[in-house]
Amino acid sequence: MNRDMGDGSGIRVGVAGATGYAGQEVVRLLARHPAAALTVAMASSASSPGRPLPALGRLWDGAVAPLDVDRLAGEAEAVFLALPEEASAHLAPVLLDRGVRVFDLSGAFRLRDDARRARWYPHTPAVPPATAYGLTERYRAAIAAARLVACPGCYPTAAALALGPLVDAGLVEGDIVIDAKSGVSGAGKTPTERTHFSECHGSVSAYGVFAHRHGAEIEQELDRPVTFVPHLVPLDRGILETIYVRLAPGTSAERLAAVYEAAYRDAPFVRLRDGALPTIKQVAWTNFCDIGWKLDEPTGRVVVVSAIDNLLKGAAGQAVQNFNVACGLDERTGLL
Amino acid sequence: MNRDMGDGSGIRVGVAGATGYAGQEVVRLLARHPAAALTVAMASSASSPGRPLPALGRLWDGAVAPLDVDRLAGEAEAVFLALPEEASAHLAPVLLDRGVRVFDLSGAFRLRDDARRARWYPHTPAVPPATAYGLTERYRAAIAAARLVACPGCYPTAAALALGPLVDAGLVEGDIVIDAKSGVSGAGKTPTERTHFSECHGSVSAYGVFAHRHGAEIEQELDRPVTFVPHLVPLDRGILETIYVRLAPGTSAERLAAVYEAAYRDAPFVRLRDGALPTIKQVAWTNFCDIGWKLDEPTGRVVVVSAIDNLLKGAAGQAVQNFNVACGLDERTGLL
Amino acid sequence: MNRDMGDGSGIRVGVAGATGYAGQEVVRLLARHPAAALTVAMASSASSPGRPLPALGRLWDGAVAPLDVDRLAGEAEAVFLALPEEASAHLAPVLLDRGVRVFDLSGAFRLRDDARRARWYPHTPAVPPATAYGLTERYRAAIAAARLVACPGCYPTAAALALGPLVDAGLVEGDIVIDAKSGVSGAGKTPTERTHFSECHGSVSAYGVFAHRHGAEIEQELDRPVTFVPHLVPLDRGILETIYVRLAPGTSAERLAAVYEAAYRDAPFVRLRDGALPTIKQVAWTNFCDIGWKLDEPTGRVVVVSAIDNLLKGAAGQAVQNFNVACGLDERTGLL
Amino acid sequence: MNRDMGDGSGIRVGVAGATGYAGQEVVRLLARHPAAALTVAMASSASSPGRPLPALGRLWDGAVAPLDVDRLAGEAEAVFLALPEEASAHLAPVLLDRGVRVFDLSGAFRLRDDARRARWYPHTPAVPPATAYGLTERYRAAIAAARLVACPGCYPTAAALALGPLVDAGLVEGDIVIDAKSGVSGAGKTPTERTHFSECHGSVSAYGVFAHRHGAEIEQELDRPVTFVPHLVPLDRGILETIYVRLAPGTSAERLAAVYEAAYRDAPFVRLRDGALPTIKQVAWTNFCDIGWKLDEPTGRVVVVSAIDNLLKGAAGQAVQNFNVACGLDERTGLL
Repeated sequence: MNRDMGDGSGIRVGVAGATGYAGQEVVRLLARHPAAALTVAMASSASSPGRPLPALGRLWDGAVAPLDVDRLAGEAEAVFLALPEEASAHLAPVLLDRGVRVFDLSGAFRLRDDARRARWYPHTPAVPPATAYGLTERYRAAIAAARLVACPGCYPTAAALALGPLVDAGLVEGDIVIDAKSGVSGAGKTPTERTHFSECHGSVSAYGVFAHRHGAEIEQELDRPVTFVPHLVPLDRGILETIYVRLAPGTSAERLAAVYEAAYRDAPFVRLRDGALPTIKQVAWTNFCDIGWKLDEPTGRVVVVSAIDNLLKGAAGQAVQNFNVACGLDERTGLL
Repeated sequence: MNRDMGDGSGIRVGVAGATGYAGQEVVRLLARHPAAALTVAMASSASSPGRPLPALGRLWDGAVAPLDVDRLAGEAEAVFLALPEEASAHLAPVLLDRGVRVFDLSGAFRLRDDARRARWYPHTPAVPPATAYGLTERYRAAIAAARLVACPGCYPTAAALALGPLVDAGLVEGDIVIDAKSGVSGAGKTPTERTHFSECHGSVSAYGVFAHRHGAEIEQELDRPVTFVPHLVPLDRGILETIYVRLAPGTSAERLAAVYEAAYRDAPFVRLRDGALPTIKQVAWTNFCDIGWKLDEPTGRVVVVSAIDNLLKGAAGQAVQNFNVACGLDERTGLL
Repeated sequence: MNRDMGDGSGIRVGVAGATGYAGQEVVRLLARHPAAALTVAMASSASSPGRPLPALGRLWDGAVAPLDVDRLAGEAEAVFLALPEEASAHLAPVLLDRGVRVFDLSGAFRLRDDARRARWYPHTPAVPPATAYGLTERYRAAIAAARLVACPGCYPTAAALALGPLVDAGLVEGDIVIDAKSGVSGAGKTPTERTHFSECHGSVSAYGVFAHRHGAEIEQELDRPVTFVPHLVPLDRGILETIYVRLAPGTSAERLAAVYEAAYRDAPFVRLRDGALPTIKQVAWTNFCDIGWKLDEPTGRVVVVSAIDNLLKGAAGQAVQNFNVACGLDERTGLL
Repeated sequence: MNRDMGDGSGIRVGVAGATGYAGQEVVRLLARHPAAALTVAMASSASSPGRPLPALGRLWDGAVAPLDVDRLAGEAEAVFLALPEEASAHLAPVLLDRGVRVFDLSGAFRLRDDARRARWYPHTPAVPPATAYGLTERYRAAIAAARLVACPGCYPTAAALALGPLVDAGLVEGDIVIDAKSGVSGAGKTPTERTHFSECHGSVSAYGVFAHRHGAEIEQELDRPVTFVPHLVPLDRGILETIYVRLAPGTSAERLAAVYEAAYRDAPFVRLRDGALPTIKQVAWTNFCDIGWKLDEPTGRVVVVSAIDNLLKGAAGQAVQNFNVACGLDERTGLL
């Protein structure tokens, strides 16, 4: 698929799961994307009634239709799935068979190892061959060639962008600790006791200790064990991860900075903040991943801080970034 | 009932509906009340399993039992009902028949007029004769004599304490507008879309315009129509009401202040802030109602601001204050 | 000034006061505006050191220069002033004399009546003749012809868009009450006790009762007295105003809706929500003003709710909207 | 000093620094303390004018006087210092010389090692001999005998209560990582850019990496290096610390639980939550420290979560708890 495959008004794209938080962001981004024509947005089930999205009024005034795979395949060359993983696991292969390119925001196709996937995503028997892991900055070539892009989880995006270059350079020794703080929109749109306002406001809570599937995704990407603990913090959008590692003895601050600069020289959405540390406020409502660090040279202990907007770089924004790469467009199209 | 009716360790009290936000506050207050012995705390239904209240650990280490009216009547001389109004409407008469004194936090028995009550609280066919409206500062004598105390709603408490003295003094002319801002705990503990963290955070919303039963309760207390609009604001505990009225021509600032001072000279939980305006922070986690005002003498327009903690003065605290009055105790017992 | 006055890359624009909250939003909007070329961004004083804006990295990577009126006039055809009103009062006439078109976000030139202005904006001796009040939806023709556009205050924008059509149609009778709830960014970037996190969090406070200059601005626009009380609510961006009026006897709900629809048929940034009520969340980070209402037909009482993002429609967004109108561009350019 | 040293109404106590957040909490606690008589509350400087504390109206209606050491020593047997450490470093020795018992909330006297103290608290040349480190649960005997109690910092309280028993039992191997999340009241009452509402709301930020004096305090208490990174989270009161360690090979979950149970069997303000994890909401507005943990037995990795209210157990509450111990009172007096 490339740009001139579309009709005059752009590549025809569709969204399934358009009423959730990530799905609405996909719709918002595609509605103003200069190279895409949003032809259809659907709910996450066939029985859902059609409805407008009032918050997107004037940005996109269509109605969200019930889920209908035939119509989806008929009206779109590329489809974004913002669905529960079980639904994605079922729907993606059908769309691929119909020649549609798929950008999946769920976890269904992220884990390549069968045993790992059986544990965390049991509804996905197999990963199709032309699947890329959609961490854009690390897999551009594979994404460009893929038919199915498994967009990373929000926590793994922030973690792998911060740790990937250090691991690749062989600098990391010993244990890796990832302490993640996430806004509540990451828990989705369905009301629960955990996400009830009065429970979250004025509170911080850890969850999923030693039992969060994003931990497995991070371990796959880094190819080593990590201790990963996510926390809910009382804000809506954004993730900040504080990462604790030891570097190989003698690693200098200059070397550390050089590794990051080399890794992200051509990455328009990674902003390195050597000497300062990122905050969530600086990345909220953007597709940036900001990375900063402090090294204690005598001991080799380093603290890396990585921040993203969980709904953009951690979900919808990265999916569109991958779409841009897949279509041969400038990676930034529709995202600044 | 008076103090020496209790055994050595205090008047035996029970709570029904102990797991909700208001119910937990009642338990917390009674557990440390020097003249009460909390003998039993029950859930809001008979099918609810027994469970502890971890947040109250070391303050009250009992288990919340399933609802059981026989046991409740057997173990308590006074019972606090923190139940949905339908349950209160059913349970209160049974307890009264068994000789138990009842402090009801629901709306079931607040409206005296049958037509009004039929509209807003249809599950309450009649209000028992020995019922008092539990706005402590205005009905101490009736509360002392009552068998059933219908504790006021949170919004009416703040509104009637602010407006009652002005209306009683014949100072109010024309329309009354009450713009109320409430923390989300006022909406209760059941997760809903309205109270989902990501919907409330960073937002303010009006609701129940011309259709909130607390409007009827305020109108009963003031004996005139009001325009009452409640709003959800992104905080947990507290209500601030901004009240707009015109005073009779020629009313001076001195006269206005004198009316308030006369009304609340002996009210330990009303703090008048002439010249300053209350904020929610100053009353949160207390049983105080703070009242301040600004008068524009040339026009007679006055803005009154009234603030309470919705779970304390607006619910559990006022219920215990009424219990104190009913038992002949110092009104402040267990509340400072 | 029109589009072809610019060089190939767009109309040359500058910003003074680029480090404040509104100023940063102007920079952010202009940096991606397809018809504008941001040539210079300056601080609010000549002694301020040059500095980058890290939060805008990759969006605008220039440095904020010290304030320098000669350079500003030399490098820009149009200048946005996001300065304290005293600085704007001084700077705007100088820029106008140099042939620069000025979009002023301060209050310096909003009040036309000398006595009123002497009270609220004493640093502004006179309003230049070719000045328009920049409430876009109501003054497009004047804005298109003006050399100086006095962009409205945030509170008056939400109030006048909600009330203007009703007043113009002769529907409003009696008192007008405007109860406004604002996010804290409206108070600016300078730390104060009022805007200290621990004072605002978990609290709501009224301020400026009978003494806020935005009240005078609203009264000028509606040509009648209003009671206006602003409140700080614990969120960052957004204003919600709840407006209480009585309509002329017999006004039907259909008539009311028709008046709004006629007024805003061609207004791309006003979204009418008949039957629903706006929330801040729906407008935050957008240039929309959402308006909804509830009418109690028997009494004629109506509650109108109006919501904007104070930094966009209430400041930077509306300034750019006015710039678009002034330049003959589509009003929405760079704002969706 | 013991109970009968006081007059009929209790031990005479005073507070210096009564207007800050921690100081106000001390006043609030002492005003209702059944065994203490609050005789004097002073500001943090001699030039500060006298003033009331409106938020404490009806709880304590005295006026805060300018700082006056003679008066303080004359009117109080025990003094709580809620002052900047420089002021405490100067004032405490003077009060001790006058025979007053001192409970210092600052860091001035926490670090025993001269070199460490010279780096972090340079205004304290020496620590008086009868000084105890006021981590109540670990030093009751020393506190009972001390003339000066150096109350711990908020972060060290949560960290040392969680880690102390593990270190004492010889269970900890390798690096210790402490990731702390604090409400903004911990940064004090003086407005700064860091604590400006619009900067904190919707954000999380790390600070003081490898450079926070509470890190030195934790290292003193545990007698080994730690990596400690504090974060500001958008809430007012409370700290949650997530602590990452490895246990000695073969340590079972039963052994881990037994160590904690043995350590805190008689500690009324430590609540162990084996199997669950604490949240800030559960401890806010209380003097409890809640501790929970998860052990991954195969690897020995353990995550311990510790939560306190930074103004109570982390400051004023623990100071009063120490006062109770020092006076031979039940540790819980005035704190439940």
